[in-house]
Amino acid sequence: MARTKRTGRRSGNPDTRSEILGAARRLFADEGFESVSMRRIAGEAGVDPSLIHHYFGSKDELFMAAIEIPFDPAPEVAAVLKEGGVEGAGRRLVHAFVTIWDGPHHDKLLAVVRTSLSKPAMAFVLRQLFEHRIVKTVESSLGDQVDHVPVRANFIASQVFGLVVTRYILKLEPLASLDEAQLAETVGPTIDRYLTMPVEHLLRES
Amino acid sequence: MARTKRTGRRSGNPDTRSEILGAARRLFADEGFESVSMRRIAGEAGVDPSLIHHYFGSKDELFMAAIEIPFDPAPEVAAVLKEGGVEGAGRRLVHAFVTIWDGPHHDKLLAVVRTSLSKPAMAFVLRQLFEHRIVKTVESSLGDQVDHVPVRANFIASQVFGLVVTRYILKLEPLASLDEAQLAETVGPTIDRYLTMPVEHLLRES
Repeated sequence: MARTKRTGRRSGNPDTRSEILGAARRLFADEGFESVSMRRIAGEAGVDPSLIHHYFGSKDELFMAAIEIPFDPAPEVAAVLKEGGVEGAGRRLVHAFVTIWDGPHHDKLLAVVRTSLSKPAMAFVLRQLFEHRIVKTVESSLGDQVDHVPVRANFIASQVFGLVVTRYILKLEPLASLDEAQLAETVGPTIDRYLTMPVEHLLRES
Repeated sequence: MARTKRTGRRSGNPDTRSEILGAARRLFADEGFESVSMRRIAGEAGVDPSLIHHYFGSKDELFMAAIEIPFDPAPEVAAVLKEGGVEGAGRRLVHAFVTIWDGPHHDKLLAVVRTSLSKPAMAFVLRQLFEHRIVKTVESSLGDQVDHVPVRANFIASQVFGLVVTRYILKLEPLASLDEAQLAETVGPTIDRYLTMPVEHLLRES
């Protein structure tokens, strides 16, 4: 009788999935994405590591699920940057970004940002998403044309997060009512400047 | 015996102050800064309007107290913009902004921003602060040199709020470790561009 076979329920139980997610969130927030292994998360959740692969595939995919982001932004960023290279990259990036934010994922994306900005542990997790997914994607897409990508990515993030806050949270007008082409044209050149301005003097000796 | 004279306690009671603040917060959030009178707030709080003037002075000061902002940013913005006009205004603005945020008001400012970004009613209040204090201050400081200040102020806010989020909440590195002069030099030109770029085509017919 399957209903009483408690030990057998584990692999197919929706609770297993949420136990893995809970363990992943705690460990990613406490120790960081890089230093936590899949095996460690499985141990914390009390499940076999193969179950994590079964439910989530890769560690990246588990991470996206743990922070409840509705999709992985990295492939989108890669596609936008590779098409055309550094020339006009700012406009294309802002256009794609606004199109995604104005689309069906809007509510979930906003929830991720609100949570990240109000809870320090989640801010740490969002920073990791940025550092381990976005910065690396920009490096692999534009690294042959642009130097010091990590520091430039900080400035780009400062403009892009500010766009999220003012357009989607504070809803400043007319910014909240402009379309993606208008924002690409006005904010895109800011991104282009951050991709090309001198930054060597900002790097600390290490 | 003063301790039993209940009716007399009202004017000197710390509760009166918090009742006024609570009423002001509710009304500002529900109906907006412009449409709510001091008399209306007094009525909601169940106190004489003269008590609001006694505790808070002007409606602007009551508003700052209601949103728990540690000081009024408008005079700072006015001082920075008037000194030197539009030439180099971006650098001066970013320098002053970062200096204030890195100073003793840091924790309280961060609390205001965190609350505003996580609670929609508070976001509405922060938008009002922006529209009724900051935009008007920029208009009175630079209005003779810069056209269409309200739309430009939106873009400036998008960069400045993004700096708050990435430097003070997400703490992206190296952005979080740069000093005010480095940020003025890198982010200042973005503000200058927003003060001078063409914006006529972004204005909606009304």
